[in-house]
Parts: sequence; C-alpha cells; structure tokens
Amino acid sequence: MTQAECARKNIITPEMKKIAKDEGLKPEFVRRQVASGRAVILKNSSRRAVKGWSVKGVGQGLSVKVNANLGSSPDRSDVLTEKEKLKAAIRAGADTVMDLSTGGNLREIRKMVLEKSTVPVGTVPIYEAACRALRSSRGIECMESEDMLRSIEDHAKEGVDFITVHCGVTRATAKVLKKQKRIAGIVSRGGAFIYEWMAKRGKENPLYERYGDILDICYRHDVTISLGDGLRPGSIADATDLAQLGELSVLGKLAAKARLKNVQVIIEGPGHVPINQISRNVELQKKTCGNAPFYVLGPLVTDIGAGYDHITCAIGGAIAATCGADFLCYVTPSEHLGLPDAAEVHEGVIATRLAAHAADVARGLEKAVKRDLAMSVARRKFDWAKQEKLSIDPKRFRERLRKSVSESGACTMCGKYCAMKHFNQ
Amino acid sequence: MTQAECARKNIITPEMKKIAKDEGLKPEFVRRQVASGRAVILKNSSRRAVKGWSVKGVGQGLSVKVNANLGSSPDRSDVLTEKEKLKAAIRAGADTVMDLSTGGNLREIRKMVLEKSTVPVGTVPIYEAACRALRSSRGIECMESEDMLRSIEDHAKEGVDFITVHCGVTRATAKVLKKQKRIAGIVSRGGAFIYEWMAKRGKENPLYERYGDILDICYRHDVTISLGDGLRPGSIADATDLAQLGELSVLGKLAAKARLKNVQVIIEGPGHVPINQISRNVELQKKTCGNAPFYVLGPLVTDIGAGYDHITCAIGGAIAATCGADFLCYVTPSEHLGLPDAAEVHEGVIATRLAAHAADVARGLEKAVKRDLAMSVARRKFDWAKQEKLSIDPKRFRERLRKSVSESGACTMCGKYCAMKHFNQ
Repeated sequence: MTQAECARKNIITPEMKKIAKDEGLKPEFVRRQVASGRAVILKNSSRRAVKGWSVKGVGQGLSVKVNANLGSSPDRSDVLTEKEKLKAAIRAGADTVMDLSTGGNLREIRKMVLEKSTVPVGTVPIYEAACRALRSSRGIECMESEDMLRSIEDHAKEGVDFITVHCGVTRATAKVLKKQKRIAGIVSRGGAFIYEWMAKRGKENPLYERYGDILDICYRHDVTISLGDGLRPGSIADATDLAQLGELSVLGKLAAKARLKNVQVIIEGPGHVPINQISRNVELQKKTCGNAPFYVLGPLVTDIGAGYDHITCAIGGAIAATCGADFLCYVTPSEHLGLPDAAEVHEGVIATRLAAHAADVARGLEKAVKRDLAMSVARRKFDWAKQEKLSIDPKRFRERLRKSVSESGACTMCGKYCAMKHFNQ
Repeated sequence: MTQAECARKNIITPEMKKIAKDEGLKPEFVRRQVASGRAVILKNSSRRAVKGWSVKGVGQGLSVKVNANLGSSPDRSDVLTEKEKLKAAIRAGADTVMDLSTGGNLREIRKMVLEKSTVPVGTVPIYEAACRALRSSRGIECMESEDMLRSIEDHAKEGVDFITVHCGVTRATAKVLKKQKRIAGIVSRGGAFIYEWMAKRGKENPLYERYGDILDICYRHDVTISLGDGLRPGSIADATDLAQLGELSVLGKLAAKARLKNVQVIIEGPGHVPINQISRNVELQKKTCGNAPFYVLGPLVTDIGAGYDHITCAIGGAIAATCGADFLCYVTPSEHLGLPDAAEVHEGVIATRLAAHAADVARGLEKAVKRDLAMSVARRKFDWAKQEKLSIDPKRFRERLRKSVSESGACTMCGKYCAMKHFNQ
C-alpha cells in the first residue's frame, strides 16, 4: 500500500509519525493531509536503507521544503563533481535533491546519488530516454514510448522517491503555445524534448497517453509523481499566459486521476513570474489541482538577475510560499550562466531555505516563529554562541564574526555605541 | 526656494527636468509629485559641484531607489576604507549613500564622501553630537540641544542632501515602548542615544522640541528631512507594535509641518517585519504620513539570516516596494555581525537593486519592464554580449560566463540539450 492508501484507510504509518515528530505536529494531522492529497510523503517503498536517511513530507500545514537540483550536463559530466555538489546540498540543509543528469554515465551518477543522499531523491526519467536517443545519430524522434516507460520503471525500481513527468505538454497545449508567440518559448528541457518529439513524430505525448501505465508503476513503488511544467514561462513577459494555464488545467485532471489510484502527486510551477502575479498563480494551482502540493521553480521575479538568481529566486519563493506554495526548488547564482559548482549549490540552498523559513514565519508555523524568537533573545543578550547555533548557516556566521571582534562585546558595526548596549530597559 | 516650494508655485526646476529625463517621465509629472509631497528631490542647494554628480528623485511614480549605508565605527575608522566602500557602492549602482560614521575623524570622512560621491549623500547629524559627548568623560547627557542643532547646521552647510533626525522618540512614545516589554528593545543607534539622553536628563527630545528650528535650517539649504524610526522593531516578535506605531503617528504630524514650511520630507520605516505584515506597514505609513515617500531599512523577514541578511532584506524590500515603499536602504551580508567591507557593500547594493527592480517590474514601470523584455529577447537569441549589458552586474555576468563556455553556443547548464535550442517555433 502507498502512503496515500494507508492514510485513506486511517492507518498512521511510521513515516507519518516520523514527519509529525520532526515538524512538531500530530501524526493524525499528517495522516489527514496525506489522505486528502494536500500533502505527500517522499519515500519510495523499494528504496534501500541509507544511514541517516530522513523521510520528508511536503504540503499544506507542513514546513516549506527546499529542493536542490544536481546533475551533470553534456559539458560537465564528472561523477566526483556531482558527489561534491550532493554533499554541499545536504550540508546546506536541502530537504530533497533531484538528479537531473544529462551527461556522462547517467546510471552511475544516479546510483551514487541514491547511495549517498540522506534526503529523498527525485529524477526526470525522460532525460535518460531522450539522452539515449540523442546520443544515437537518429535524434530524439527515435525514442519510443516504451523507452520512456522503461526509464520510469528503472528509476522506480532503483528507489527514486519522486519523478518529474511532463505529461501536460500535449498536442492541445502545444497548439495553444504556438498561437501564443512567446518571447522565450519553452525553457523546460523535458518540455522541449517532448514538444520536439511530438512535432517530428506527429503523435500525442506518450507520457500523457500512457499516464495510466505510469500510475501503475508509481503505485507499485510508492513513487510520488511530480507533474512537470514543460510549458512554464521563461520570461517575465510570458508569465501566466494561456500556454501555462492550459498545461495547468491538464495537470489538474491528471492529479485527480493519480489520487483515484492512490498515487501521491505534486504539481510543478513557474518559472519567471512578476511579484504582482505570484499570488494569482498559487491560487490557480491550488484550485485547479484540488489543493495538491505546489512545487515552484523560483519563481524568478525579474529576468535580469543572472549571477544573482539565487536572490531573485528567494524573493519569488518567499512570496509564493507565503501564498501557499509548499515546495521550493532552489536556483543557484549560476542560473542562466552554467551548471553550478558545489559552492554555488551551497549559496542556492541557503538562499532558498531563508525564503522557506521566512514564509513559515509569515504563516505562523510555531517551530519557525520560536526559532526567530530565540535568535532575538540571544541577540539581546549578546550570546554569540547561541546566535551562531540558531543562524541559517552557523559556519558562515562563525567565520564572519571572527573578522569582527570588538572589545565592547558588541560587533564592529557599532562597537561600544551598540543601540542594544545603550538601551537598558 | 526649495524644490517643494518651486513645485508648488508651478515652477519646473532643472532638477525636475533631469529626473524626468533619467526616468522616462514627463517633467510636469515630477513637479506634481514633488508639489504634493509624494516625491522629493535629494539635492542640497548649497552643495558644491562634483563631476558626474546626479540628482535623484524618490517617491511615488518614480523608480524605487536604493541607499547604501557607509561609515566608520569606533572599531573601524579608517578613511581609506570608507573611500573604498563608497567606490564599491557607487560602482554597484547605489542611488544614494549615507555616511553613518561614528569612529575616527567624522568631519574628515564626511568631507571625503561629499567630495567623492556622485550620488546624493545623507547623514545622521545627531551621531556627531553624541560621539562628541560620549568621547568626553561625561557621557551622552552632557550633549546640549544646541550641540545637536549645530551638527545639523554644519551638515546642511557642508552640502549634505538628506539627514535623518530621530524626532519621534519622545517622552510619550518612550513611555509606550517601556510598557511594551519588547524582545529587542531599541536597535536604532540614534533612537538609543535620544532615549538614554531623555532618561538621564529627564527632558523632552530636543529634536522634537526644536523641530521648528530644524525645519528652518533644512529650508535654507533644501535639505530633505528623513524622519528617523528610532523605535523600529529589531526582532520579528516586536514588529508593528504600539511603540512603532506610536512613533509613526508622531512622524505623520511632523511630516505635515515640514510640508507647511516647504521642507521636503521622507519617512523611515522598519526593520524586522514578517512577510504577512509588510503590506499593512506600508499602507499605515502612507495613510499616516500623507503619502510622504517611505524609506525602509529592509525590512528583514526573519531574524536568523545573519551572514545572508542582504537576502532577507531583498525579500522584504521587494515586497515592501511592490506595496508602495519608495526607497530601500540596503543591508549587507555582514549585518548583525560587523561593519561591512567593500565587497560586502557591493553584494548588499546588488541584492537591494534586484529587489527594487523586481518591484518596478511588478508595478509596471515601463523602463523596468522593457529591460526585462530586452533581456529575454537576447537570451532567446543566445546574444551573450547583450545579456551581459542588460544584466544587473555585467562584470559578474562576464566572469561567471567565462567559466562556462560550451561548444553548443548554450551555457554548460544544459549544453547541446538547451531547451531553447531544441524548441524552434
């Protein structure tokens, strides 16, 4: 039985108990959220045990989670580099990681990630099928629907906890896209592969046509389906357009089907979105998809941030999560410029964790509010050790403070003129 | 005549024309905003010419502006370091700088900033009066009201364009603060100095009592008054409390008085504010202060960000500015940990500029929207040179891209599998 099935049969699983404990919630609350599809539990039932591995829940009422995208590309495909990035992501506090490799030995990299990751692992199986086709001389069109399903089954058997499937790029939504005359077209790799395949083969998207088979595979291994947004806007000018909304509407219907089959499902979202459209995007997703968890990539709130897109992402993510998004996919400072290295992975995770935490505080999540309160109390007491422990990145806190010792006991910002030293209530 | 006076007499000044040109607006629109007090023009009429100096307007209908705080402290008081920080702030695109020095030779540092800054300069004159008193053995209480006014007059004569005066920390608001039992008390240096002075002398705040004299000085030199928020919350738990609101109400009345005397005025705001309270804070300020420009420090949306508070600041600033705040004071990664160095000043300015720009985009400011559009068009065309030029920090863009050349013409993120390469509309 999947977690969703157990939840609907009033069974509280060990995973629900663990999540409840980690988050300071009641197990029955977690069960109810999973039963209603408002939350999912990311754990493949076939996954092999990893020391220190921790199950995660994503959804309404739970703390906002942060995903770090890892993975090679045709230009950067070293497994050791990926290992370093994985370590950096986990050390920085990512709740999940996705292996989005498209370069080198994909299976070897995925194996390493599944063996080493102490957090749930997601993948995009279509990448593997597409890469195999593209590496052959015959191009993407030689990929068969069986190849796509085999990749999905392989990943599910190997223990992948959640998979992105771009089922919403259909002949119908592609037509809408064409009419739209977008500035940035398609910016999702999976979306572009499917679109190209459909154009060349003149057929419907197999991920859409054979969605029932995909559900069967996912049910067997309790893999959570992340319905990909292959038509997400890649430019502020394209945000919330008919192509995006058309795909969202398809995803909503597919989410309902997953629920009927007791398969856990989350919905992926944009992308590049101006601040004033973020709340509308979240509301639409929740309404269209029966309150399934919303997993947003960013959103990036401007197009000009390359070099600092972890910050434009943190701005958008904090707003989206305050409005109800549940799961934030990070962006690193190298977005739009190249594949990130381990240091950039670190910066990306921390920035997005700050966004997630700020949203938790805004939503009144007790644990988050208490942490801020404890930090302020420690600050007022000049208890630097406690502040370090409570800060988002204790190592960075320590390193920065070391440059800044002041005889006054305060930091060098104000030294002996520190307001908190002068104000004695 | 001050800019406000000219505006009210239907005179369009050269400064209004320059601002209109820079921002792509009509001079008459700028005049009207200044006349109504919805916008101010930061330029001391006594300031000496600096090559490349550029006047700036702040307020409704204009692009959101970014201020960088500079200045020494008792522990770090080197004028050369301040020069480096000033250069870094201007290079990174700060619209204004404030010299908040409290260490070393304050006059020398201020002189350097006024001579070298190509953007408007702000100060907090009370710091100079307070430092003089604190450096004597007799403590803050030996500061006389005449000392404070002399500092204000000195700064005005030297050409400072805007000054912060903490007029809202009064006996009445201090009483409210005492009852409040805050977590973080007072975190504004100016606020703490005044509070301590009032407690020790048992008298009303001279900046409040002699506000009329301050207005006279500011009128003579057309110095914009920035009404300081000495009681701003320094902890999420203290946000939007009665002490903060009590001070805001005083500032509203003082803003009206300034307007009657044709003195330009802006209002300073918090501080540490959870995301869900930001819009309310902006609305309250606008209503209470007759739509005077709102100058926010942050707001920081969580207390745990030390080491990355430029990001918590960018999140809060972007939201505040989208809701109507006009002027964002940056925070650097060293906030809560020490005085920033030049590199941290750079990071702070860029993060806050991203926030300001994202808000401009959200508010539909034509120039900002067009820049994002041009960036997306360049991205779609793989025109890397144009992207560099349009990016928030072309130097960083160039450096990061150099690590990431791909034979495919795309970046190493996806290489030959770049979605935009595969999607041919």
